[in-house]
Order: sequence, then structure tokens, then C-alpha cells
Amino acid sequence: MKIGVLGGGQLGRMLALEGVRLGQEFVFFDPAPDACAGQLGRHICADYDDEAALTEFAEAVDLITLDFENVPTAATDFLSAFKPVRPGSQALRMAQDRLTEKTFFSDLQIPCPLFSPASDWQQLQASCREIGYPCVIKTRRMGYDGKGQAVVHNDDELAKAWETLKDNDLIVEAFVEFKRELSIIGVRSVSGSTAFYPLTENRHKNGILITSFAPAVADDVRDEAQRYAGKILDSLEYCGVLALELFDMGGRLMANEMAPRVHNSGHWTLDGAVTSQFENHLRAVMDWPLGSTNAIGATAMMNWIGAMPDPANALSYPNARWHDYGKKPRAGRKVGHVNICADNILALQAELGKFAMALGEQLKSSGADAFLR
Amino acid sequence: MKIGVLGGGQLGRMLALEGVRLGQEFVFFDPAPDACAGQLGRHICADYDDEAALTEFAEAVDLITLDFENVPTAATDFLSAFKPVRPGSQALRMAQDRLTEKTFFSDLQIPCPLFSPASDWQQLQASCREIGYPCVIKTRRMGYDGKGQAVVHNDDELAKAWETLKDNDLIVEAFVEFKRELSIIGVRSVSGSTAFYPLTENRHKNGILITSFAPAVADDVRDEAQRYAGKILDSLEYCGVLALELFDMGGRLMANEMAPRVHNSGHWTLDGAVTSQFENHLRAVMDWPLGSTNAIGATAMMNWIGAMPDPANALSYPNARWHDYGKKPRAGRKVGHVNICADNILALQAELGKFAMALGEQLKSSGADAFLR
Repeated sequence: MKIGVLGGGQLGRMLALEGVRLGQEFVFFDPAPDACAGQLGRHICADYDDEAALTEFAEAVDLITLDFENVPTAATDFLSAFKPVRPGSQALRMAQDRLTEKTFFSDLQIPCPLFSPASDWQQLQASCREIGYPCVIKTRRMGYDGKGQAVVHNDDELAKAWETLKDNDLIVEAFVEFKRELSIIGVRSVSGSTAFYPLTENRHKNGILITSFAPAVADDVRDEAQRYAGKILDSLEYCGVLALELFDMGGRLMANEMAPRVHNSGHWTLDGAVTSQFENHLRAVMDWPLGSTNAIGATAMMNWIGAMPDPANALSYPNARWHDYGKKPRAGRKVGHVNICADNILALQAELGKFAMALGEQLKSSGADAFLR
Repeated sequence: MKIGVLGGGQLGRMLALEGVRLGQEFVFFDPAPDACAGQLGRHICADYDDEAALTEFAEAVDLITLDFENVPTAATDFLSAFKPVRPGSQALRMAQDRLTEKTFFSDLQIPCPLFSPASDWQQLQASCREIGYPCVIKTRRMGYDGKGQAVVHNDDELAKAWETLKDNDLIVEAFVEFKRELSIIGVRSVSGSTAFYPLTENRHKNGILITSFAPAVADDVRDEAQRYAGKILDSLEYCGVLALELFDMGGRLMANEMAPRVHNSGHWTLDGAVTSQFENHLRAVMDWPLGSTNAIGATAMMNWIGAMPDPANALSYPNARWHDYGKKPRAGRKVGHVNICADNILALQAELGKFAMALGEQLKSSGADAFLR
């Protein structure tokens, strides 16, 4: 089957690495000439409003999926006249606007922080009074990796945040004191089968995910997380992998946001689960039976931000599972990750200690040392 | 790094799937226009004696390796003037001619069946008298998957074999009554580090490998196998993965043949070992530290010969690890494989039973049912 992917970043690249193994071919649509998935299939390099290029793309493939949730829905609407687009425009609309997304959560009775829209200075002040300080001001659209948001504790900080963000439609959210950040990766196939991976525990630094650990020790909230993710999948008649980020408030959960695609917090599944999130996304959109989402032991994932460490050091630790996205180094850019696997949590901690020794000084620059503390 | 691969079949394809994950790029040189690795990098489609194409290939890459042991050594000699070729011509010369190979084994004091050359009818008769019936007549060059050989039990069968094979230089080998077929995958890096995977037990049908199981229960011969493979790697100052096929005579081993490349009997390592044979081959030729060759539990590999089974049936068993080479169906052709993994042998047998149920009628046509008997 020829699978078209809107977006050709590392997620598209990993989809294709798994999909080629399954015997499939790939075509990527990405405006960036250096899209790193381009190594694995034809790359149509054009803007998302280029209808001739979109038509060419649609005609070259059997079905269309995406690695990027901010694809304009005008493009997915246009494409769906030619070929199935999975997940479709409805899921993208829900995920692209934080106000729509939070309203959707509320409608499904999925708890989330108090929220209120703010499209001008007056409304922003009113919303902040309603929510109370501290609160988080976020752009409704296009924020990711901590961009487009500010935590404000008082009127001064609010005025500053307004200066930075005022060109955008905004949402004000209550700042919640969570115990930890979790995520659940769920998948639903064309014919409606669903499956869920064990919960992942995530740690961020400067708004960017740096490490994940799975399965998270979370027996008390696992069913709750699965129920929330299941509601989202079913109510959207969703097709593919969806990630739901959650705050653990100490035995109960609040939804933070969802991503209608494979997700960084599921990268551990490449080496730590029977079937990876990438393979299951493809199985879902091709309507193949879903693969087992069971974890194999315990896995820690560390992102490499900015640049890859020297493999001569890092891989002197013989159990590392190395993932290099083939991207040029750049500050703040996710360029790769490593998975470290072990039979159980205790053994994993020992393995992480050995890996840290192998990394040496490079551990600090990776930011992954947060995991080891 | 840009890695050139001579040969672009499924082995090159799997090398690239692992290598792209490690951040590398690939160029394939293969005379076949439909070489299935071509999906994963540039494909230079030319004959192995096309010096202009070989020059273009060498100039496009940083180092050269191969997925096919019958690349003419004139080509590897020519290429090595431009870029490192790993493994090099010497290893290919040893493996391309069964007489040279068996002489090499004998020189290293690695036991192998009695053998004797035969380049004409008189010499063939003399060699058969020396070795005794039953014996195996093989072409010295280019045989694989059971092609170019015949077992003969008497003078009549010998005369028939001669009619079929007489256009080739031949070797006569004693027919040995082995208990089972084993193989060992070894790897040696540029800087001389070596590592060995656990032994694999292999079953053939019509000369084609159909199933492998690893780690083979073989405590009595494991050290012996490693010692033989180690002698070969070190004496050739070999670089990359090498497979040594062995006959288990009941507690002692005889070498059958070697392959200076990644090998079908190592496909289980993709899902059943910490580091796959493909990744370790690339680490070896790039002079990265070698990854762990430890097995994760027990794994059975089944080849799909001729055509892939319908995934709708096969993958209703949720633990299958699916590998489809993207090749057109054709009788006798290896088009894919599946790995089934479990914690241990007993659990693996139960898993194989479940997989057989999922395959249903397709099990028989796959030939993989031999494994389950």
C-alpha cells in the first residue's frame, strides 16, 4: 500500500521505518526541503495551500495520514475528496485550538483545569480574575514544546504576557499543582478496535519533553486514563494513534492536552513494547488487526535536544537502543532519542546508572540527567 | 555517514532500516531494477563490471559493505582503491569457492566433512571413490538455497548429477548424518572487537531455510562454535557480521559453510536480541562500539517463501513481529519473515500454537508448520 504522510519530520520518519518493515511505501508532503523523513520515500515539497501539489500527493497514494497536528484543515478537507484521511479533519479541529479542545474535554466529562477564552485585553483581565492567579496564558493555536505560553502570578506578569502574546487568540487556564505528568497512548482502527499502552510518566525541561518512563507506576489511575482516552477515540470515531497528556493530581487525573498523532511520549514503545505506537498507527489506518500494546519490562526514553551525543561514548554502554533522526544540530531541536530497557524498574535504575557513566560529560548537556536524580 | 551497499535485496533493506534509525544514509548498487532495498536510498542500477557506475557509487559514499557474497572480487578490488570495503575481497574469495572455503576451514583446524575437488568426469569418479557413497556433489561457486548440488548414493546417480552439473567446477563432500543444523553469527569491528550471538537452530526444506529458533539449546557445543567463528574472524582480520553454518553431530560440530554477511539465520535478532545482526554489522563497519548480542527470551523465526500470508489472519495473533520485504510473489522466493518471541522455550511453544491457529490454512502453504511438528 502507498501511504501518504502530511509532515515529514521525525514522526513521519519513524512511521516509515516501521511501515517499510510491514511492506508499505511512503510519500511525504512537507514544506521543508530538508524534512528528515524524505530519506524514506518520495517527498513532495510544497505549502499546505498548494492545491496542485496536494492533488498530486493524493493521486500518488492509497490513503493519507499525518505526523503533524497543525496541518491546516483546509488541506485535509481538500484531500479527503480524493482519498481517506486518517485521522480526519474533525480530530484536527479539536486538537488545533485549545479552547475547542478543552470544551470537548468538558463535554465528555473529562476533568481539566478551569479555562476561559481571551481575545482582547479586557477579556484577558476578566478571565484571569475568574480563574485566579497563578494561571497560564496560552495561545489557542500553534503552541508546542512550551512555546506560546506564560505562567502569570500577578497583574505585572499578566501585562508582560499580553505584550508577548497579544497578536493571538488566547486562553487562560488555571495553574494546577500536579504531582507528575502522565500520558496515555491509545489507538483505534478503521473498524473500531481500540487498544491502549501502559501509562507513561514524562518529565519536561523548559517546556520540552526530555525523558519518559513506562510503564508508569500508576495502578490507581490507569483505568481512569484509559476511560478518558477511550471516550475521545470513540466520540470522534477516531482512526490511528492518539496521545492524551494528563496531570496526576495524586490519585485523580486532569487532561492537559491531546495530540491526534504518534507522540514523543510513546517513543519508548519502539523498544519497550511488543508493537510500537508507529506500527499500531499504521495497522489502525490500514485496518489491519492491532498489535499487542504490552510492555516488555520497563523502559526509559531520553530525548537528545540540540545535538546527538558522540556514539563512541554513549554506545560503549552495550544495551542502548539508538535513534538518530538524521537532523542537523540546532539549539532546542529534538534530534534523536535513546531507549534503555530492563526487566523491571530496579534493574532499569541500575542500567541507567551504567548508561550515565558511559555518557560522562555528555549527560549534562543532554538534559537527561534529570531522569537520574 | 553515507554507506554504500553492494546488493540491494532484503538483507540490504534490513541493513538500511536499522542504519537509518542510527542516522546513516544509504546508496545501493544492484543490477536488478526492482531491488527491494531501493526504497531506502539511491539505487545505482548497473552490472558489477561497469567501472563508470562503480566509480560513481564509490564517490557517493564514505564506506562500502555488501549484502551478497557473490559480488565479483574484481568489483571489490576496484572499489577498494576509492573507499574502504568491509568485509573485503579476501573474505569474499574464501566464501565464493567451496574448495577454498573448506581448505580454509581445514587450515584453521575447524572440522568439516571430507572433501575433494572434481573438475572433470575422471576426477569426479576418483573423488567419489575416495569419499565413498553417499556423498554430495556441489558446484564450487554460486550455489545457494540448495541450488547447484546433488546427493548421490551410487554410480547411476553420480552419472545423472554429472549431466546436470558438468559445466561447473565441482567439489565432492562426504554426506554427513547430523543431528541438527546450527549456525553462529559473529561480528568483528574495524578495531578488532568481537561478539557472538547465541547459537541458532535451523530447519531447511528443499534446501531453503524455513525456520530458525534461538537461543538453541546447545550448552555442550556453544563454546566450540564460538571458537571456530572467532578463528575465522581473526584470521581474516574480518570486518562486519559473518555467519558460520554448522552440523551438530551429537555433541561435536562440523563446519558446513560460511557467509561473509548478515544471514537469514540471524533474522531472529531483529526482535529477539538487544542489538540486531544488522545494527551490529553497521556498528562494526563504522567502527562504533558493538551492541549487546544477548537474546531477550526465546525467538522463533519463520520465512515466508513465495508469497506473504494475509495479514488479516496472521496478525489476528497480536504478538507477531512482521517483516515484509516488499518483493513481488514468486515461487521459491524469500519474501518476508515473522518473529515470534516469548520469555522462554515453553512459553514460546504456546505462542507458536496460537500463531498457527491464526494462520489457519496459510500455515501449511508457508512450510512453517515444520517448526510446530
